[in-house]
Amino acid sequence: MKNDGLFIIENIKPSVDNGKYPVKSEAGTLFKVTATVFRDGHDKIKVNLKHKKKHESHGWESTEMIQINQGLDIWEGSFILLENCLYQYTVEAFTDHFASWLSDTTKKFNAGININSELLEGEILIKNVLNKKSLSKSAVKILTQYLTTITSATNQTEKMKIFSDHRLDELILIHGQKDDLTVHEHIYEVMSDRIEARFAAWYEFFPRSQGNIKGKGSTFKDCIKRLPDIKAMGFNVIYLPPIHPIGKTNRKGPNNSLFSTSKDCGSPYAIGSDLGGHTEVEPALGTIEDFEDFINACISLEMEVALDFAINCSPDHPYVKDHPDWFYKRPDGSIKYAENPPKKYQDIYPLNFRAENSVWKEVWTEMKDVLLFWIKKGVRIFRVDNPHTKPVKLWQWIISELTAVYPDVIFLAEAFTRPPMMRALAKAGFTQSYSYFTWRNFKDEIIEYFTELTQTNVSDYMRANLFANTPDILPTILQTGGRPAFMMRFALASTLSSVYGIYSGYELCENTAIPNSEEYLNSEKYEIKIRDWSAKGNIIDYITKINSIRQTNPALHLYKNLRFHHCDNNNILFYSKSTPDLSNIILIAVNLDPHHEHETNLHIPLEEFYIKEKDSYLLINLLNDEKSIDKGHIKLITLDPDSEPAHIYRLERWSSKEDKFDYFNM
Amino acid sequence: MKNDGLFIIENIKPSVDNGKYPVKSEAGTLFKVTATVFRDGHDKIKVNLKHKKKHESHGWESTEMIQINQGLDIWEGSFILLENCLYQYTVEAFTDHFASWLSDTTKKFNAGININSELLEGEILIKNVLNKKSLSKSAVKILTQYLTTITSATNQTEKMKIFSDHRLDELILIHGQKDDLTVHEHIYEVMSDRIEARFAAWYEFFPRSQGNIKGKGSTFKDCIKRLPDIKAMGFNVIYLPPIHPIGKTNRKGPNNSLFSTSKDCGSPYAIGSDLGGHTEVEPALGTIEDFEDFINACISLEMEVALDFAINCSPDHPYVKDHPDWFYKRPDGSIKYAENPPKKYQDIYPLNFRAENSVWKEVWTEMKDVLLFWIKKGVRIFRVDNPHTKPVKLWQWIISELTAVYPDVIFLAEAFTRPPMMRALAKAGFTQSYSYFTWRNFKDEIIEYFTELTQTNVSDYMRANLFANTPDILPTILQTGGRPAFMMRFALASTLSSVYGIYSGYELCENTAIPNSEEYLNSEKYEIKIRDWSAKGNIIDYITKINSIRQTNPALHLYKNLRFHHCDNNNILFYSKSTPDLSNIILIAVNLDPHHEHETNLHIPLEEFYIKEKDSYLLINLLNDEKSIDKGHIKLITLDPDSEPAHIYRLERWSSKEDKFDYFNM
Repeated sequence: MKNDGLFIIENIKPSVDNGKYPVKSEAGTLFKVTATVFRDGHDKIKVNLKHKKKHESHGWESTEMIQINQGLDIWEGSFILLENCLYQYTVEAFTDHFASWLSDTTKKFNAGININSELLEGEILIKNVLNKKSLSKSAVKILTQYLTTITSATNQTEKMKIFSDHRLDELILIHGQKDDLTVHEHIYEVMSDRIEARFAAWYEFFPRSQGNIKGKGSTFKDCIKRLPDIKAMGFNVIYLPPIHPIGKTNRKGPNNSLFSTSKDCGSPYAIGSDLGGHTEVEPALGTIEDFEDFINACISLEMEVALDFAINCSPDHPYVKDHPDWFYKRPDGSIKYAENPPKKYQDIYPLNFRAENSVWKEVWTEMKDVLLFWIKKGVRIFRVDNPHTKPVKLWQWIISELTAVYPDVIFLAEAFTRPPMMRALAKAGFTQSYSYFTWRNFKDEIIEYFTELTQTNVSDYMRANLFANTPDILPTILQTGGRPAFMMRFALASTLSSVYGIYSGYELCENTAIPNSEEYLNSEKYEIKIRDWSAKGNIIDYITKINSIRQTNPALHLYKNLRFHHCDNNNILFYSKSTPDLSNIILIAVNLDPHHEHETNLHIPLEEFYIKEKDSYLLINLLNDEKSIDKGHIKLITLDPDSEPAHIYRLERWSSKEDKFDYFNM
Repeated sequence: MKNDGLFIIENIKPSVDNGKYPVKSEAGTLFKVTATVFRDGHDKIKVNLKHKKKHESHGWESTEMIQINQGLDIWEGSFILLENCLYQYTVEAFTDHFASWLSDTTKKFNAGININSELLEGEILIKNVLNKKSLSKSAVKILTQYLTTITSATNQTEKMKIFSDHRLDELILIHGQKDDLTVHEHIYEVMSDRIEARFAAWYEFFPRSQGNIKGKGSTFKDCIKRLPDIKAMGFNVIYLPPIHPIGKTNRKGPNNSLFSTSKDCGSPYAIGSDLGGHTEVEPALGTIEDFEDFINACISLEMEVALDFAINCSPDHPYVKDHPDWFYKRPDGSIKYAENPPKKYQDIYPLNFRAENSVWKEVWTEMKDVLLFWIKKGVRIFRVDNPHTKPVKLWQWIISELTAVYPDVIFLAEAFTRPPMMRALAKAGFTQSYSYFTWRNFKDEIIEYFTELTQTNVSDYMRANLFANTPDILPTILQTGGRPAFMMRFALASTLSSVYGIYSGYELCENTAIPNSEEYLNSEKYEIKIRDWSAKGNIIDYITKINSIRQTNPALHLYKNLRFHHCDNNNILFYSKSTPDLSNIILIAVNLDPHHEHETNLHIPLEEFYIKEKDSYLLINLLNDEKSIDKGHIKLITLDPDSEPAHIYRLERWSSKEDKFDYFNM
């Protein structure tokens, strides 16, 4: 039997699983919150959005919420996420007794009813505020003044005029008692990430393959020389597969072969040898100081490094000797290698995150400490390998512990598994997620998947980082579609999401796969590669152009603003991205068929941009700088997969009118 | 840093606001629950649905859940709601180590890999169970037997055969340790109401208007005489507006007039006089014993009484004298009458459910005690007047307190207000709700509204009791459409929902309104009425027929089974209701236009009933007993609003085949 909290406050959005996990947004964003709020009866109510930085000790700030839908009692408020940190928010409501009284009394007065008794009630409401002990002297002074003027007024009209003074209303609202204040029972959280969580272009390369001498691996020093070219293409995150000492026992040979010779460099994912483990650097790449130099070289080019966090240990990893109880054991006491029966991965020992007798605590803590080690070296982005094969709560703990101190650290989940686990990892705190993008090639499936990713509740906690290829995935469309497919898939990756990536070799349209698989033939995972970066047929110019378009058009920096539009050809995908103020409107049409030219009528949603059917507008094809002045919502286009698989237009208003001419109003 | 609960268990359905409020169902229902459940890695898992009666002290029962969608990790389980009471349920999961081991080992064995080490692991798994202290002697015996047989087996094939014995798997599952058991953090509730919460036909009458002498009100004794006729029509709930002493001060005259004479009977909603309040009976109706006789007369006819619970007090109510602090006061100390400015309701004093200094507790408790008083007199259904003008938490408290002891009590919320409040009252515990049915007259709006009511999450907690009319609402469609509209709207109310009602006079097609309003002219709320129940043009036969159809067709006893189907005329609504086992399939087509005959092709969804396009089936029009043998999914029908505004078909399979003939297989 409780008489407090008599308001109903529900349906607070955005929220993830009713507030169980934080929402994600970015610093600089105006964070809008809606809620359904009401009480019984017809009294006037006030609703506030309360918010604070989580790790700040002092109190809550309040901003007033506005009723945006009366019939459904929906209220909306907002605050700016000023910093890169975790914020908390919730909603409170209370009855505005004075406003309720004023509204009722005004109605009666206007209906010619004697309101003598009501006016006395109004005076009592002011007196109640004056009786509050904490009231400031100035408030007492002004309120007393109001009361005196009201009491001395000689007729109801005059009294009502004073009562209706908006400043009185405000004073009472500030100083009066919120006697039936209801605060929602749950505190919600929003992680305000730095902008790069949402907007970035990733480039993945193997540091040992950045040289040009056959059979000789490159070093971090060589990698520094590669940076200007990558920067010139417009990338700003350099993502490196593991850089740690590579195991020798059961080292894999070319094409994942079980047999290797002393010449084979091994897979960097088999981590650890007598030269060290997860906090050491493979000597063939250089020293840890060389790696730090590499980080600094990136920073000086306004780029940053993303490190791979792969938990796999080779049989030679120092953990095996130092902490055998961190691993799974066979009945004979030997350590178990990784399996996916009947497949064996004898070059890898998985850690046991459920190890008994609190040993798991050591394992969890070590994983956190490894990340902390690299954070302290200046790394602020981690791509986590196969997080779905470790407990979700491990990640939830690691990420919340680390981001509490280093909120600028970005974690990308490399999980390609069933949707519930993909979502669970994002909810648990991963800043970004790999996606099914490489397997979504046709119009309907792209629209369905990206509508889910960007327009539903999923977008409140998951950001898809679209990789057009990875060392593990050479998609069928690239194998069969060749160069036009590479251009088309690049255009899609870089414009469907604000954050995307490619793995090096993409710009050279490398597409030789192991037959009947999506694995690269002679994969770089097991071999050192030498490439001719200016090889014929490369699409470096195309990549450079689109990255430059991304950079200069703010609409492409946003993630949730993707909208699909109609066009009458099933081979052409038509969509837009625009800024909330419509100052930047980008229209994108992509030919999904790498083999044939297609023509279509784009149905431009002019009404969404507040452009009338009769108004002219300018379309600038940003890829070739062609301009056209158009009118009406239909535009016929042709997309040739070889030369221009995509059109990226900026739509500009045609606002030239005589009445804007200087002399018009002279 | 927590290592327990490493499973993800989420999205438990049905649930209301993530388990904040109970779901509603009825005793006798197979209650199905689904959840998304998974863990990292590919180990085999077991998922259980745990459930118990809330008010029972002893432990939980478990039923195994089955994975119904592998790609989305969805599991389903169920239990039968045996009793009319509140149940609790939740979901737990754990790793089935033995099954995981067996599956992996079988794969390796089938691939020809040596599994010596794995077989030792299997033996250890059995030994672990044997080491448990609590193990029964018989379990020890059988498990030891298995272990001995395995150890003494001479080759891997033999050992695997024994390990694969399903009884061993079961034994280990029952007795083994669930070392990583995760129980979902929240306990969900489902109120298992009695069937009448879902399936009933209500008839509302004013007990003072059941006589036949002009100017003389009838008594409970007279009402008893009316019961057989109402029973004959097929109703089973008799709902009475308030039966308490009526106030005299500011008593309303005919048509809600502010002036009345001593002859006027007043509105039964102005409750309380010197003759008593909410626990007394208006003497003009008889004594409380007479009322008990009336209840018993209903019971003997297998009907029951629903009482109105209207909290309004007349200025003469005993509360006013005995508890003036329960009411709102004006500055001069007088009690405030009800208002909706500038309108005044001077015959009614509202109670103050927020009265200061804990006085509100007296008011809340008194309301509960009033209901308890009538419950003890045998009343088990209450129609609550205007619950939305009182705190929602008042109802939540009253209903949970009362149903904990009397789970068979049904509460109908008479709220016609904004959707969030309608839903909040249902969530707070109201068994049934009034709805917007009277204002939904056209095809699109009926489909939209009833899809929301019966097919969305709303159906998990709200049951709409469809009143075709009420003393307050004479819908425009009935005013303009006359007798055909009364038949049409009756057919809709009684088949769209499993629970519905009419207010007496409906069967006589009474439809004279105050001009430009939906209020009855000379409303029975303020006057005693005498009616000729056999007046020409009555639709008693039609009502009787449909109630009989409802009674004998189980599909019409269900609420959530409403499905709309296509027909190509916008004036005809076509829908079905069927039992889960499809043993009873009802198809309903209603002409929504009371003024014109309409024809249409019904598109019968044969595939939903597992009837093939080439198969014949029987359609029986239950309203006129006409039969037709049909084939294919198109059926042309004509609906004449005067004679048959609706068709209600039972669809029966035509299963007569030669191979079912006795001699066929001789």
